[in-house]
Amino acid sequence: MKFGVVIFPSKKLQDLVNSYRKRYDPHYALIPPHLTLKNAFEATEEDAKDLADKLRQIARNTNPFSLKTSKISSFQPVNNVIYFKVDKTEELAALNSQVNQEFSEQNPDYAFVPHITIGQKLSNDEHSDVFGSLSMTKLDHEETIDRFHLLYQLENGSWTVYETFRLGKE
Amino acid sequence: MKFGVVIFPSKKLQDLVNSYRKRYDPHYALIPPHLTLKNAFEATEEDAKDLADKLRQIARNTNPFSLKTSKISSFQPVNNVIYFKVDKTEELAALNSQVNQEFSEQNPDYAFVPHITIGQKLSNDEHSDVFGSLSMTKLDHEETIDRFHLLYQLENGSWTVYETFRLGKE
Repeated sequence: MKFGVVIFPSKKLQDLVNSYRKRYDPHYALIPPHLTLKNAFEATEEDAKDLADKLRQIARNTNPFSLKTSKISSFQPVNNVIYFKVDKTEELAALNSQVNQEFSEQNPDYAFVPHITIGQKLSNDEHSDVFGSLSMTKLDHEETIDRFHLLYQLENGSWTVYETFRLGKE
Repeated sequence: MKFGVVIFPSKKLQDLVNSYRKRYDPHYALIPPHLTLKNAFEATEEDAKDLADKLRQIARNTNPFSLKTSKISSFQPVNNVIYFKVDKTEELAALNSQVNQEFSEQNPDYAFVPHITIGQKLSNDEHSDVFGSLSMTKLDHEETIDRFHLLYQLENGSWTVYETFRLGKE
């Protein structure tokens, strides 16, 4: 089965993100708005406990940190994903790096662009229209992140939370 | 904002439940298959940390327990909810009772019918058809529950996990 590791931002930011996803993101109903720390990967249900132990350890050694977003960007020409660009702070990059090192030999650090998707799987024309009208949008949001989550995917494509990891606790 | 407390069963059981919900439950896209421990209630985001502290304490004092389901039932004539009936074991009733006592003066224990919804908001005719064809379905499923979750609801009606509580840990 597939697992993933994500941060869910505050309800306020999730509601804002969903106001876009509703129209532009076909994954809208499958998972709440999130910042991906580790992309979907294969593991067994039995592995989940070990994964969780490792993530719990990482969480304990990580302090809560600030998440800031101030603009809407796009991954074009790589793909047509439109997203809230999240500042790549040291703390966020370190957390991403630790989570990924725990689960694979390669270090995909170089490719980490922290983001919260608001639109994807758009045609090139849709992407141009939507991004054209959103790219000048000014955001000014900052909040504290104090937890992240290990999720698994159901057969219908939706995601369920396996466990929450609170930063710096216990 | 609204919070709720639920158990997510295993992926296997969630997938089975979703095969019914897809057709019969308009909440299919809003929340994964679940057993409700505490119905939606109002609280502030600031309250969430206290709620979580209390639930963490309850979880520590509760051992993992077995969840069994063997038949499909309906709440008719009270409402047209069709569900997997879950055995009301001592452990499950005790957990439900503790979670509810923590958050309200009344003890709603008498009304606790542990269930996992597979269909709801059906017309009377739909309910008769669907329940008629499902009521003889034999289930034989047992699994271990070792965690539950505090959720909050977004503006679009969907639910995000705030925190997971592992039973009997730490």
